[in-house]
Amino acid sequence: MASQVNPPRGMRDFLPVEKARREMLLSVIRRSFRAHGFDEIETPVMEDSDRLHAGLGGDNEKLAFGVLKRGLTRDDLQAADEPLDLVDLGLRFDLTVPLARFYATHRAELPTVFRAIQMAPVWRAERPQKGRYRQFVQCDIDIIGEPGMQAEAELLVATLATVDALGLRDSVIRINDRRLLTGMLDALGFAAGERDAVLITVDKLDKIGQDGVVAELRERGVTAAAVDALESFFRRPMTMEYLPFGDRAIRRALPEGADEAVIAELAALGDAVRAARRAPDLGAEELDMQSVLLEFDPFLVRGMGYYTGPIFELAHPSVPYSLGGGGRYDGMIGRFLGTDMPATGFSLGFERLVDLLEMDAEDGAPATALLYDDDVPLATLLTLKTELLAGGGRVRLVGRPKNTKSLLEVLEAEGFTRFAFVDAQVDGVAGLELRPLGSRPGA
Amino acid sequence: MASQVNPPRGMRDFLPVEKARREMLLSVIRRSFRAHGFDEIETPVMEDSDRLHAGLGGDNEKLAFGVLKRGLTRDDLQAADEPLDLVDLGLRFDLTVPLARFYATHRAELPTVFRAIQMAPVWRAERPQKGRYRQFVQCDIDIIGEPGMQAEAELLVATLATVDALGLRDSVIRINDRRLLTGMLDALGFAAGERDAVLITVDKLDKIGQDGVVAELRERGVTAAAVDALESFFRRPMTMEYLPFGDRAIRRALPEGADEAVIAELAALGDAVRAARRAPDLGAEELDMQSVLLEFDPFLVRGMGYYTGPIFELAHPSVPYSLGGGGRYDGMIGRFLGTDMPATGFSLGFERLVDLLEMDAEDGAPATALLYDDDVPLATLLTLKTELLAGGGRVRLVGRPKNTKSLLEVLEAEGFTRFAFVDAQVDGVAGLELRPLGSRPGA
Repeated sequence: MASQVNPPRGMRDFLPVEKARREMLLSVIRRSFRAHGFDEIETPVMEDSDRLHAGLGGDNEKLAFGVLKRGLTRDDLQAADEPLDLVDLGLRFDLTVPLARFYATHRAELPTVFRAIQMAPVWRAERPQKGRYRQFVQCDIDIIGEPGMQAEAELLVATLATVDALGLRDSVIRINDRRLLTGMLDALGFAAGERDAVLITVDKLDKIGQDGVVAELRERGVTAAAVDALESFFRRPMTMEYLPFGDRAIRRALPEGADEAVIAELAALGDAVRAARRAPDLGAEELDMQSVLLEFDPFLVRGMGYYTGPIFELAHPSVPYSLGGGGRYDGMIGRFLGTDMPATGFSLGFERLVDLLEMDAEDGAPATALLYDDDVPLATLLTLKTELLAGGGRVRLVGRPKNTKSLLEVLEAEGFTRFAFVDAQVDGVAGLELRPLGSRPGA
Repeated sequence: MASQVNPPRGMRDFLPVEKARREMLLSVIRRSFRAHGFDEIETPVMEDSDRLHAGLGGDNEKLAFGVLKRGLTRDDLQAADEPLDLVDLGLRFDLTVPLARFYATHRAELPTVFRAIQMAPVWRAERPQKGRYRQFVQCDIDIIGEPGMQAEAELLVATLATVDALGLRDSVIRINDRRLLTGMLDALGFAAGERDAVLITVDKLDKIGQDGVVAELRERGVTAAAVDALESFFRRPMTMEYLPFGDRAIRRALPEGADEAVIAELAALGDAVRAARRAPDLGAEELDMQSVLLEFDPFLVRGMGYYTGPIFELAHPSVPYSLGGGGRYDGMIGRFLGTDMPATGFSLGFERLVDLLEMDAEDGAPATALLYDDDVPLATLLTLKTELLAGGGRVRLVGRPKNTKSLLEVLEAEGFTRFAFVDAQVDGVAGLELRPLGSRPGA
């Protein structure tokens, strides 16, 4: 029965060192979001299947794990036309659909402008591959009920502060606006009915390059003159002068005739975020303005169809994929509520951050291993443990093996900072000879 | 579409105040278990259905939510004999079956004696009722690989320390041993084949009383002379003298002829736990020996069939149900591993603790609400927020309503400690008039 016992396909166990790292990162993120005035909520991992398949999840809906109804008979199975007939619940595939449902359930108990934190696993029945799992954690912040750019500004400032707190230097937040994107496609001459298809191709720009995008659009047979116009726009002469995120940078990146009102909104957003980052009371570390840059990206698309305004993506030069993203989705929260409600959100890709960050889970408190001989009385061992714990940190009792060298290496790898041998003669903590483990301090 | 939008039946949303309380309690429990040398692990919420239905979960197996296989056709549904045929995964109904699977998967990477923490939700498709939910959190510690009473002593000391840290005064840990229980039934004259049925009735002692137990056993038709003997034993004369948990107390509570070796083991366990609790370096609070009592309970059964040695239950005088429990289950971890492995564990009933404990989630840091007028520039608001955050705590921007009184009450209930009005003239944090909210300190 033994030999190959594994967690379900595409899902992972977390051993102690990795689990401690994950919990520590989560608590850094939670603390930072909370400081910025967001409130954590939690919803059940399951939602009613009808809600999960209400058209708000895009392609992810197809990836939902379905939960079988209870008490089904053989006749029920026979009578079913399709699998969904046998399912009443499903595991959430994102945190946005549950948030929309949560808000509809509890709106009366929530503030007029509700700032939500959700840090929780989601499930997708994707084909497992390197770095892609069937259970993974998302860290979302959302602001519901604020129609103005203040929401975006608070989202970005909170996200930047969190990225700082995680020690992720040199990150970039790329910004675009769905309204500008639509305007650009119109200005280039694409038909309104071609928009969604064109955006799917433009979304691949990072992967296939400008030539690839033009080629794929030609192949797709969309308005040829528009594709030509896009190609010319790609090839337009540009000075290499650096422009900080703002009015001029946005204008330069777009074809003539872009929506002035939207450009002004985005520029104000940039000013507000910069002002927050430049606040005089900040310590030297936070003052390092180079640690995160805002960048206007006229070709940023973000996959989901529900975005209606500004969209964002968090990037880092060391990895070719985004570390998070989000945007405004004013039409969606209203779906379960029956009334429109402005909303904007940012989702950090927790699994990618965990992989990228080197942070250790140690908190500086001493972690002591007591290596005891077989003949030490139980009461003595437990008394020693309690006495050591009174000084803080953590203590583990370990039977002393013949070969202590490999044990000490393992203990060090697990984060223990010091150890002592305990024999039957030891009388109280004062009698212990505590020695540092390896090169670590704290002994 | 609006009107009634709820989470799935028997499952709960957690709003900000409650979620913060839950996270705070979890972090107290986690810190305490970690200090005592336990390591947190995590497994996926789903396990292979075959494993969940391998006979290790007792009655809970029937309550598992099944997850439909992906890509099923109508023919697959027609061909199925029973619902389980359509299922390949299930949501875990406890943390013990996943631990057994985890240990079988990773044994080579784990210490010889492995002390595990698991703090995670489980799911059971029970009929929802007051205080019983279909998704709920368990907090388990387990020690795998230690056959001796040291494991039980460490479990109990860690549990007592955690109960202390939660501020739960006057708790009692009731202790028994499956071997003594079996011995008692034998001594009273029950047949070996009657044991399981008799234990099911004895387990109801708290609910139906001694007379109820005797009546139910008579009704069940088990050996009549044994029931008479049990009745006499219930009625035996007892002095009211208080005996601390140990050799004399155990002996007095059992019929003649109980297993001397087991009694000696339990007495040593009691001595070790007491020694740990009496350690001289402890602060006054921890020295309060009355805060938790050990108590021998010869009729403690604990439902699960897999227990093989000492069993425990955490009780509190304010509630009629247990707050947690556990015991030794030497036969079980080996099931997936293919080789026997000693193990013992203790599970805290997190949901019951949350309901019982009054603990607030506040951490003493200031929480500031800035009530701003419509005409304050966005950049000013965000600068103020950042400047305040540099001093720690949390800050929230709130549009100033006409009637501030009810808003201030809501903010206070949410844990905010101070507020200030922000108009367009305010120039920097120094210009804010911060006022305390309600009766709270920290302004």
